[in-house]
Amino acid sequence: MGGMERTLALETTKKVGEKVILFGWVNSRRDHGKVVFIDLRDRSGLVQVVIRAFDRELHGEDVVRVEGKVAYRKKGNENPDLPTGSVEIVAEEIEVLAKSETPPFDVHSQGLDIEEALRLKYRYLDLRRPRLQRNLRVRSDYVQAAREYLFDQSFVEIETPLLTKSTPEGSRDFIVPSRIYPGKFYALPQAPQQYKQLLMTAGFERYFQVARALRDEDTRADRGFEHTQIDIEMSFVSPEDVMKTVEGMTLYALDKIGAKVAKKPFPVFTYKEVMKRFGSERFDLRSEKEKKDGVLSFAWVVEFPFFEKNKEGSWTFTHNPFSAPTDKAHEKLLLEKKRIGEIIASQYDLVCNGLEVAGGGIRSNKPEVLKSVFEVLGYEEEEIEEKFGHMVEAFRFGTPPHGGCAQGFERLLMAYLGEDYLREVQAFPMTGSGRTAVMDAPSEVSEKQLRELGIEVRKKRKKK
Amino acid sequence: MGGMERTLALETTKKVGEKVILFGWVNSRRDHGKVVFIDLRDRSGLVQVVIRAFDRELHGEDVVRVEGKVAYRKKGNENPDLPTGSVEIVAEEIEVLAKSETPPFDVHSQGLDIEEALRLKYRYLDLRRPRLQRNLRVRSDYVQAAREYLFDQSFVEIETPLLTKSTPEGSRDFIVPSRIYPGKFYALPQAPQQYKQLLMTAGFERYFQVARALRDEDTRADRGFEHTQIDIEMSFVSPEDVMKTVEGMTLYALDKIGAKVAKKPFPVFTYKEVMKRFGSERFDLRSEKEKKDGVLSFAWVVEFPFFEKNKEGSWTFTHNPFSAPTDKAHEKLLLEKKRIGEIIASQYDLVCNGLEVAGGGIRSNKPEVLKSVFEVLGYEEEEIEEKFGHMVEAFRFGTPPHGGCAQGFERLLMAYLGEDYLREVQAFPMTGSGRTAVMDAPSEVSEKQLRELGIEVRKKRKKK
Repeated sequence: MGGMERTLALETTKKVGEKVILFGWVNSRRDHGKVVFIDLRDRSGLVQVVIRAFDRELHGEDVVRVEGKVAYRKKGNENPDLPTGSVEIVAEEIEVLAKSETPPFDVHSQGLDIEEALRLKYRYLDLRRPRLQRNLRVRSDYVQAAREYLFDQSFVEIETPLLTKSTPEGSRDFIVPSRIYPGKFYALPQAPQQYKQLLMTAGFERYFQVARALRDEDTRADRGFEHTQIDIEMSFVSPEDVMKTVEGMTLYALDKIGAKVAKKPFPVFTYKEVMKRFGSERFDLRSEKEKKDGVLSFAWVVEFPFFEKNKEGSWTFTHNPFSAPTDKAHEKLLLEKKRIGEIIASQYDLVCNGLEVAGGGIRSNKPEVLKSVFEVLGYEEEEIEEKFGHMVEAFRFGTPPHGGCAQGFERLLMAYLGEDYLREVQAFPMTGSGRTAVMDAPSEVSEKQLRELGIEVRKKRKKK
Repeated sequence: MGGMERTLALETTKKVGEKVILFGWVNSRRDHGKVVFIDLRDRSGLVQVVIRAFDRELHGEDVVRVEGKVAYRKKGNENPDLPTGSVEIVAEEIEVLAKSETPPFDVHSQGLDIEEALRLKYRYLDLRRPRLQRNLRVRSDYVQAAREYLFDQSFVEIETPLLTKSTPEGSRDFIVPSRIYPGKFYALPQAPQQYKQLLMTAGFERYFQVARALRDEDTRADRGFEHTQIDIEMSFVSPEDVMKTVEGMTLYALDKIGAKVAKKPFPVFTYKEVMKRFGSERFDLRSEKEKKDGVLSFAWVVEFPFFEKNKEGSWTFTHNPFSAPTDKAHEKLLLEKKRIGEIIASQYDLVCNGLEVAGGGIRSNKPEVLKSVFEVLGYEEEEIEEKFGHMVEAFRFGTPPHGGCAQGFERLLMAYLGEDYLREVQAFPMTGSGRTAVMDAPSEVSEKQLRELGIEVRKKRKKK
């Protein structure tokens, strides 16, 4: 903002005796009569400011510009808990850049006891807490470190569309009405599954994307309408190649954010072993001591059944209809539709502290195998053609053997940061009841807009 | 895929005399009777393979695994146009991993003469052209370089929601029906404008995001339903601070992809000057020689009028309703609603080779200024409260002075890559008529799904 350069709070310890300008928020204020002390907060942290001679009408959370000199604090007044605790700024001029009313809740606490709806309505204040500042900064660091690792391994980051076609990822789609084709709808992606496979057909060989995925399913502690995944696909690879890449990326990125990992390399279990030993796919290998130490404990699970019976008694896929059977023998069973329940998919899941944090598999690249899967799932020939004809067709033009993985890194960060809820690692999460943070949505739209889209809101039936 | 390690085509020149395994596509095939030559293509490029003794039923675009020995080509047979032109692989074993039918069009040409709908239907083949492979790889490199620069400047990358509230960015929103609140709708973001400002209120000070933006407006050569922007916001800054950051990021990232830039630092013009000298905001400063050399030529434009009259004679904003007036004097005019047409916004646009490639401004952080803007735009008190009450309220809790910029880097890459259409730098763009690449969308959805969302498709009126 012109003139002398800004000094950050954390930099003041290196500028004792110098004149500095700081910008930030009034974190706290203590009036000692002749002098007022404030803790000034900026993105780097806190520093104490001493105010003597002038207007002192400051309130908590006011935004100020402080001009002054850095001095050592008097002996005995140092604060060993603060990185800048040995110094203070003797203010010569203070300008209030923006006043603050009293916030609706304390922004310095952990905030876990405040009602969710209130926290999210004022999310821009809620995010001032050190805990959430840290969570979002750690998240940013983790993802950038993962990117570094993948670029170093010759991956290309490619964006895939948000307005796309409904696919059977197993959850409900969000749909978007089309103005150009009134009465028709796009779907928002539940995952970039088909596009990333098509990028293998296109010859990119090593794709990744930090991809937004949307599912219209009721929210849970670790599941919202929107989540982000590090989405990976590779050509000419074995399951072990993909697992090694994901493991390497995860360890590299966790190291960058300072996380400790219990066992390296990650142990590998078959699904059968896991169910026998732990009775659940979401098992936690940590000892009590490891839990106390905040250590992350990973394990791979492999050799999942491809299909299982649903409540109605028909076959459904356990993970992904695009998976390949684990070997030629299982492929034969699938093509001949024999012993369906025994077919093993080339699928691998990564578990961390009892949370599923990644999953993937080697895909089928043969049109007849993909068709067989959909036949087992009970699709009619015509339906397969309509819904997956483009994939079956793509596989006829030289699609290499390929496989990939998607890492739900938000869950992984929950584990590392000791958070119980996905919303604690997202900037503007929705409420549990599906309302947006800060803004009042969903909301009504104009009749004109609905007419343009060729849709109308159903009239409510009167309750008897 | 197990066994010996894979060698990429480009690495073969360093392995003369060694046994290697390659994976890739049959790029071309020349049958010379006793021997067949194929050019094998992988992500690194091409290498010649000589096949003598065995099954040679290979077709273009088949996916193969080749085992053989690297040898120097005979004198006179070298191909100086190919980086691997001095060597060839004498095949000992070839395995066809996936057959290819004959593609519906040539995948080795530029492809510009092929009908758009056909190219996009088979986009996974279209993307095999060297031109598109390069475009997407350059795009990936540009964005990662921009990220590197911003992280180096202490920025934090923060994701903002896709399911959000309709905002007046000047274009038509895509809307998403809510299942939990039947008859109500979310909007997809036209830009993360409000969220990024709220992140400044939250104290992040330096935010960026590679953000998807969606607008339901008819497509043009350089505009689709979806585009991606490098979205930046900073606290405690002057316009020059933001411009310097964007300029620094752009030059750093362009240098990484090997682009040449005409004038550094970028020249700055006022809007008045530009209109007088060039008669258009989209001016091109390049000389004929610079055009031939493929040089990028940038210029900043500043001091735009805040408002202009629309066709109906009412005031509308020229760029962004959240902008701040350029100084105290203009702020006074706005608060008093005097000489509206003379109010200058603190807005800066970046032009490159006649394309608008970035735009931003210093925002208003005072509730009364923001309210004045919406009053000038003709909003009623109640409407302001309903639509922007949350922003006005946020500004009451210590929102620092802030400003930012959004770079439409896809257009910038169009300029650098010599492309006339946005779709040439996107992986799976829509057709001009709003249909998705490869997949058949928009499409009809089930009655059950519509009922759950509380909407129905309007019945078509019969044409007389």
